Amino acid sequence: MDISALNHTCHEGRFLGVLGGMGPMAGASFMARLVALSNADCDQQHLPAILWSDPRIPGRSKGYAKLGPDPLPWMMHGVNRLVSMGAGAIAIPCNTAHLWYEQISAAVQVPVLHIVQAVIDDLRRQGIHQGCVGLMGTSATLRLGLYQRALEKNGYRWMMPTETEIADYCSASITLVGANRIAEALKPAAECVSILKSRGADVVVLGCTELPLALPHPIRPGLGIPIVDSIDALALAAMDWY
Amino acid sequence: MDISALNHTCHEGRFLGVLGGMGPMAGASFMARLVALSNADCDQQHLPAILWSDPRIPGRSKGYAKLGPDPLPWMMHGVNRLVSMGAGAIAIPCNTAHLWYEQISAAVQVPVLHIVQAVIDDLRRQGIHQGCVGLMGTSATLRLGLYQRALEKNGYRWMMPTETEIADYCSASITLVGANRIAEALKPAAECVSILKSRGADVVVLGCTELPLALPHPIRPGLGIPIVDSIDALALAAMDWY
Repeated sequence: MDISALNHTCHEGRFLGVLGGMGPMAGASFMARLVALSNADCDQQHLPAILWSDPRIPGRSKGYAKLGPDPLPWMMHGVNRLVSMGAGAIAIPCNTAHLWYEQISAAVQVPVLHIVQAVIDDLRRQGIHQGCVGLMGTSATLRLGLYQRALEKNGYRWMMPTETEIADYCSASITLVGANRIAEALKPAAECVSILKSRGADVVVLGCTELPLALPHPIRPGLGIPIVDSIDALALAAMDWY
Repeated sequence: MDISALNHTCHEGRFLGVLGGMGPMAGASFMARLVALSNADCDQQHLPAILWSDPRIPGRSKGYAKLGPDPLPWMMHGVNRLVSMGAGAIAIPCNTAHLWYEQISAAVQVPVLHIVQAVIDDLRRQGIHQGCVGLMGTSATLRLGLYQRALEKNGYRWMMPTETEIADYCSASITLVGANRIAEALKPAAECVSILKSRGADVVVLGCTELPLALPHPIRPGLGIPIVDSIDALALAAMDWY
């Protein structure tokens, strides 16, 4: 077996580095959507990827608020390992982690896909070029304006749930997904979609990668409003990169 | 940020190396089941894992029959990369790849979990200690006796579909999963379960990691026969190792 020739062959191809584990089901689901959303009709046409799934990365919301350990060194460690393995780009299927996007992308030589840009690209892909975007996500993501600034810059209006609604619906659903109680996570997430719709949102962004797990694809047409899923949007951005 | 301390912390913990991409949906699904089957109730309790998802690995059935390129160098490349990153054990969510188990496990210093042993452990976990095991899988896996020898050694009888049935039901279903036509893959897979049941099988083993995708968990109770799923069995074996 000519290993040197093989190494050459393997390194020729580009592959995506995925910093996962935040949570681990979101990372696994991202990998699955990368497959499901592609047009490949056999294994060999799919995008090669390495998932670094490190669920030990400390919680992002608490870390950003300095109420828990800092996740940034853990995230940098994973990203550095992926880059050292030769990843040609990095995807991070966790919205809240993007609060550290500038630090992470400045520290590595390869492009780091931005989940918010991926969502905006997906809004356009779905034919939504203006109007009011209803936001769902963690309290940290929403409070710190991760999506709001980018949406305004791209000509969208936005609305978000109240602090109480974020706690009762978004965070409740996210916590249930993290605790492997995915079936129970549906009700609070769907309730939040319905509130945003009743207040005039034209589309709802699932701006936390746990939320697409709470609201599985088959039930979405029944919600009566377009949904942009940050896992799917990031997977599509990765395929565009590839 | 004290990176040296962090590297120490990160390397302290064990993590699982997963050689995926065979096919890519089976690898992603393995990662998801590793999460879903655990008792963790927050992210940080889950098993750290790295998935090397390389769908470019040449087809295993054709490769073993020398009708296509040899997948072994590609598999060894992935396993070596996982080990060099510090994986404490390797899991390979592809049954046919286990035709090269001896070569792979002899070449690395860390344990390589064996999917067939994991299935036998799961039979026992399900309380099935004897009887006739109906086998489904690729033609190569079934023809070359990957499961049969191990089952006999552990006191089970076995049966498998005819060559025509393997082509019409198992291979057809596996190919549909590989082509992202998962909904269509259900019918041939369910038909094969029904044939094995009608011939007296006491349990059916989904001995190809594409087949659990064709037969999603919610429909299995309706099949009227216990099912052992090689993805779930391997995920449980990984958790036992961890």
